[in-house]
Parts: sequence; structure tokens; C-alpha cells
Amino acid sequence: MRANLPPPEYKRVVIIGGGFGGLKLAQKLKVSHYQVVLVDKNNYHTFQPLLYQVAIGGLEPDSIAYPLRKIFSHHRNFHFRVAEVLSINNEKKLLETSVGIIYYDYLVIATGSKTNFFGMEDIMQNGMAIKSVPEALDLRSLIIQNFERALLLDDGPEKEALLNIVVVGGGPTGLETSGSLSELKRHVFPNDYPELNLEKMMIHIVESGDRLLGAMSEKSSAAAEKYIRNMGVHVLLNTRVVNYDGNTVKLNNGETIAAKTLIWSAGVKGNVVDGLDARAIYKGRIAVDSFNRVMGYENIFCIGDAASLAETDSPDGYPMLAPVAIQQGEQLGKNLLRLAAGKTLKPFSYFDKGVMATVGRNKALIDAKGFHIHGFIAWVGWLFIHLMYLVGFRNRIIVFINWLWNYINYDSAMRLVIRPFKKRKNPEE
Amino acid sequence: MRANLPPPEYKRVVIIGGGFGGLKLAQKLKVSHYQVVLVDKNNYHTFQPLLYQVAIGGLEPDSIAYPLRKIFSHHRNFHFRVAEVLSINNEKKLLETSVGIIYYDYLVIATGSKTNFFGMEDIMQNGMAIKSVPEALDLRSLIIQNFERALLLDDGPEKEALLNIVVVGGGPTGLETSGSLSELKRHVFPNDYPELNLEKMMIHIVESGDRLLGAMSEKSSAAAEKYIRNMGVHVLLNTRVVNYDGNTVKLNNGETIAAKTLIWSAGVKGNVVDGLDARAIYKGRIAVDSFNRVMGYENIFCIGDAASLAETDSPDGYPMLAPVAIQQGEQLGKNLLRLAAGKTLKPFSYFDKGVMATVGRNKALIDAKGFHIHGFIAWVGWLFIHLMYLVGFRNRIIVFINWLWNYINYDSAMRLVIRPFKKRKNPEE
Repeated sequence: MRANLPPPEYKRVVIIGGGFGGLKLAQKLKVSHYQVVLVDKNNYHTFQPLLYQVAIGGLEPDSIAYPLRKIFSHHRNFHFRVAEVLSINNEKKLLETSVGIIYYDYLVIATGSKTNFFGMEDIMQNGMAIKSVPEALDLRSLIIQNFERALLLDDGPEKEALLNIVVVGGGPTGLETSGSLSELKRHVFPNDYPELNLEKMMIHIVESGDRLLGAMSEKSSAAAEKYIRNMGVHVLLNTRVVNYDGNTVKLNNGETIAAKTLIWSAGVKGNVVDGLDARAIYKGRIAVDSFNRVMGYENIFCIGDAASLAETDSPDGYPMLAPVAIQQGEQLGKNLLRLAAGKTLKPFSYFDKGVMATVGRNKALIDAKGFHIHGFIAWVGWLFIHLMYLVGFRNRIIVFINWLWNYINYDSAMRLVIRPFKKRKNPEE
Repeated sequence: MRANLPPPEYKRVVIIGGGFGGLKLAQKLKVSHYQVVLVDKNNYHTFQPLLYQVAIGGLEPDSIAYPLRKIFSHHRNFHFRVAEVLSINNEKKLLETSVGIIYYDYLVIATGSKTNFFGMEDIMQNGMAIKSVPEALDLRSLIIQNFERALLLDDGPEKEALLNIVVVGGGPTGLETSGSLSELKRHVFPNDYPELNLEKMMIHIVESGDRLLGAMSEKSSAAAEKYIRNMGVHVLLNTRVVNYDGNTVKLNNGETIAAKTLIWSAGVKGNVVDGLDARAIYKGRIAVDSFNRVMGYENIFCIGDAASLAETDSPDGYPMLAPVAIQQGEQLGKNLLRLAAGKTLKPFSYFDKGVMATVGRNKALIDAKGFHIHGFIAWVGWLFIHLMYLVGFRNRIIVFINWLWNYINYDSAMRLVIRPFKKRKNPEE
């Protein structure tokens, strides 16, 4: 196999990853002399902030994912390859990939992050993550399959374990997921499963810190906790999951919860590519300078979740959020254009527009410089921002209609088990 | 395992299959004394006439499938089980299923049809069918994967085989599929794959009879053939595929076509359930009398594709079409209500409203008693009828918007390979 790319007329920029950062960068280089080669293991861009809605059946995968080829179908000098990157060899300025060798002049690592199970093999084997479209669909299937199985059983611990769901991690994803599940419990499942006593279904959210939404203001944390408790979700703070065998969740305080579904949203780590110098790796992410240049390399850059800023006050760099990746992609695009024009690079600085999270209908929280809002207005803001950032006008229309539909009808239609969930042999697949 | 159903107050009607017929019947029994138990191996109803649009990326699976529980969520006396039916034991009036034994008073077999490979093992192994949502998604993935692989190759026979597609069967599905593929070739792939020479992509349609749409009028056949030839599809009539190894299609005239994709839409056969008497089976379908009662049984009925009318002029019974199944479901519902009221059964007769097929944008054919239309008006009629029959108002809106979008933009957005296609171990799965 070989990547079969035409030689560049000027220089080639290879971008690994078509997420928020890689996409923005490629768009910035649209009118440039560079030949741009984008490599991604999928043929689509995933709008990760809405993956949990695919999992709980509120949205279809096609409306939050977007074919990468389509985005660039009218760009000259742009090439895309569906490929897994195996390693970097910067002496020879090449990438080894599953479709062969790809040479580069500049390399941009925009590989994002993956679920961090912190080495807990049992949770990796038995828990569910929501970092990719197939994972979201698997979770959807598993929840429905468990309910269908529960129908067949008499009341008892086995049946309750099938209905119970433990969400680990009190960040935005954990909160959004447990909020949506509680809405399913209240509005959807009673109609679908009149034979089941849904009082027995418990949704737990387990957070190791002393508050939910630890990255947001204390006001927002307090409001979120009030919301989610009122929605009937059992909140466990200062608590960690230490073991999960697929049936019983063991907590660090010695208590246990019987649950056949554990959703792990308690941590991510950078997707690091093989072949970089050890000094370029910092706490599982790739150390970059203020120009997003990887430490020790002239011609390799890293943006987004995978990048850790070596020169900032915070030892972990910027938060792993879409806006950081987008701004870094934009800035790096400008810098590559400056390089082509023989100018010096300009340093990146993050413009923090604020952070937001939602809990359910009419309930969201926004922290932006100086002010905190929550409730209906924040929720409308959350919807609006997420629609804005979705790639593709059709996707925006479809998501908007689905949201409107679900809002009016207290319902979500996508409860199909297209492919029954089976235990994964390799959970990282 | 056991199905865990409450005992019926009056009598229990068990329906196997939530397709067009089973669904209509269950709806007719909504206000009755019967307890209705619907059993399906999926938790959703599939709108099979539009499966090919899922395969070619025009629609998302969620908009043509519909959760069966949702349809009946406000029906009293209705129960649904996701289960595979293993066999019928009518002496004990029970079904053995994957979730345990289900007793019945009346049993209705509405299991539809499955792909008929006529015993050709190699085609079953290497060809693609479009009878279920997973099959449609697999076909979508395979076509895109083949194009991505073609990008990596120099011009030559291997590359051409990756681009070529052979559609077997000149019925509505084969015609609609090859028409859609030719539209992808003309409008979508040139933008997605500017690196490929799409002149080399050939779409073949192979039909064993002497005309396309053999079940329609000769006028319609002639119009369809003209359409599809003008769209650049290579039409082979009076030709059969005799062998396919995944690379080379062998025809009965000795010729071969190099193609990595073969779509088999050349035949279906009834889904017969084990445990019926031999005399109840006729040419792979279940023989019924004019009341849709299975020959030799008092309390077992069969409707839809699986049923073959033993007492009609045509030895094969009614055509295997959605309208037949729907009308039979409706009629059987009325008859079961008559039985409950102590009245005699009324015989079924099919009211043929006509048949239709589409080839592509602005191109469709309708045969209805006495008249034949084709062209734009027929195409609008086709769209309208298909929207009407879709289950769920949300689905209708979403499909309508997608069609409008695709029509205006000469594009279809759903080109995602969510799960790469891999060779199936058991192709019937």
C-alpha cells in the first residue's frame, strides 16, 4: 500500500486528525501555496459535544457527524486519506500509516483525546465510554437491551441491576448524560415499558471532587447539583469508583451499587503519536511552545486536546475544549501562512469566551467573564451555540427539528437497536 | 428465560413480525378484547422500500425505521418482545422463542421475506443484499471503502474493479439502486474524489428476463430502460449471474465483469417458521386460504410476503408488496374481531391500486388500472406515496427535508462509514 499523493508544488502540510482543530487549520490553508493532506481514521468529523445525545437516542449519528471529503470538495490542493497513523519519523520527515508512507514538510498533530481509564482494566472491559459514534451507538443499544431483558424477569436484584445506571464523572458529559437519562426515565420509558416499575430505576452520578462541574464556577456547580438532584439523580461527591465487574460498582467508601450499565466519563488523555522524543511528551500530552510547536522540533506542531502548553502558568496547559482547538487551529493556520511569506511566528493566546453545560430541558449553566447565568436563557444559549458550531447547514436544520420535536413531545424517537451491543474484544477499538 | 407475559383476560393473539402487515393488524386490534403480543427480532419497524436510500447515503436509518414500542405505547393490552422465533408447536399452542415460551390462542405469521440466493453459496458469501438496515449500512460502508482504496492504486484492472458495481435484478430495488448509484457517480463522487477518473466507474444492471420491471407494464419497462441507459447504466437483459468470487462476476453467456461490489436484488423468499406441517408450505412460502388461514390449521394465519394464496389463479399468490401485506393485515384484523363477536370470516381480496418505481430525480413510473405515467409527475407521486406510508410524523418531516436538500443540492450528505464493513461470517445474520 502507498498513500499515492501527487508531489506538492510548494510544501506539504500533513494534518493528523479532522476534529475541531485540524478542520479549522485546513480551512485556513484553503487559499495558500501549501498542499494540505488531512489524515483521519474515520471519513467523518465528529461533533463530540453532542455524542451523548446520540447515546440517549435524541439525535442520529448522521446529524452530528460530517463527511470530511465533503467539507473540502471544492478546495484545490487538498487531499484526504482515511488512515491510521502508526508512527512519525522526523529524520526522514515521514509518517508511517496504514495506507503507506506520507512525507511532510510540516506536520500538525491534531489527534485529540481518548478516554482515560487510569489503568483500571476492569472498568475498561465492562464500562461504556462516549468518545466516538460507535461507542455512543453501543451505549444506546446496551441501555435498550437491558430494559428488554428486565421485562423478562421477576422483581429482584438482577432486574434492578438491569435498570440502574451509574455515570462516573461530574463534568459536562457526565452531567448531560445523567440529566438526559433522568428525562428518559420520566417521559419516555413509562410509555415504552408500562410493564416495568420505573421507581426501581436509579441513576447515579459519581464524582471524585467535592462538586459537579469542577471546571466551572461554584455558583454553577451549586445550581447544577440542585437541578440534577431535583431530577431524581443520586449524586455522590468525594467518591471514586474503584472496581466494576459488569454487575456491581464498587466505591472507595466500601459501598456498592448493583448496575449493569456504567458510563465512564471521568477522564480523557491526549492521543499521542509514536515516534516523538521523550522530552516532547508531558503528562500524556504533547508539550508545545507558545507557537504550538512541539518541544524540540522545528517543523512539527500540535493543537487541541493532544497539546499541553509547556510555558503556561497551569502545568496542564489550556483546558481540553473545542474552542481552544479551534482557536489554535486558526492561529497555526495564520502562522503557517506567515512562514510561507518569510515572516516570524506570532504566539498563541487563548481567548476564553466562557464555558457552558446543560442538564436537561430549560436547564443549563453558563460562566463567562464575570457573570454566571443559569436556567432557560442559559439553555437557549447552549442550544444556539451548539447549533452554530455544528458542521453543515443540513445538520443544523435536522438537529434543530429534532430538538424542537423532542421538546414539544417530551420524547426522543431514536430508540433503535440497529446493531446489538456485544462485549468488545478490544475496548479501545 | 421466559417471556414473562401477563395472562390474557380474553384470548391472546401472537403476531410474529412488525412489518407492514403485522403492524396494521396490531393497530386494528387496538380496541378489542384480545391481548396482542407482537414478537420481532428487532425493536423497530423497517420501511423496506427506502432501504436502498440508506445504502446509497441519501437517508439515515433512523428516519426510515421506527421503534415498535413507540407505536403501541398508548395501547392497552399490548405487549412487545424482542425475540427470535425458534419454532411453532400448535398441539400445545405455543411458540418457542429466544426469550422463552409464548402461548397463543391465535397465531399470525407476518415474517415477510428474505433474500433468495437460489442456493448460490458464493454469491451469498461475496454479494451484498439490501433487506435490512445493517445490510444497507454495510453496503454504504463497502462502496465508500472501495473508493478510498481505489485512491491508493495506479490505474489498472484492480482499481477499476473497486469502482465497478454490478446490480443483479431488474425489479424496483435493482432499478432504484442502480439509478441512485449513477447519480452519485455524476453529482457526488466527482466532488469527493477529484483524484479518481470516474469515467472508469461502471454501473451494470443484470436482469435474467427480457425487460426491466417485469412485474410492470411493457410501456413502463421501456421507459425505465430508456431512463437508466441515458443515465449511463449498462443494462444486460436475458442474462444471469452464475458465479461471484468477490472480484469477478461470471455471467451465463461466458462473459465476466471485474467488480468488487455486487448487489443482489434478484429474488426473495418467504420467511418460513419451523414447526408447520409440510402441506402448509408451498414453494418456500406458507399456503393460506382466502381468509389468510394457514392450510390445515384453524387458529394460525399468515399475511404478507410469507403467505402464498393456495386458491388463487396465480400459483404464487399475490405479489410480495407492502400494499398486499397492509390490506391483509387490515382484513385479518376485522376477521379476528368478527371471530370474537361469534361471526363468520370474510374472504380477503386484494385491491390493486397500482405499482410504481423510481429511477432517479424527476424519473419514476406508475402503472395503475388502465393508465401508465412516467416522468416528473410520476416521480412526485412516488415521493408523496412513500412519505405517506412512512411510520411517524417526525420521520416524514426529516425524510422530506433530506429529499428537498438532496434535490436542490444534487447531493446526499450521509457518506459516513460508522462501522467499516467486514466480511460476514454468517451472511444471513
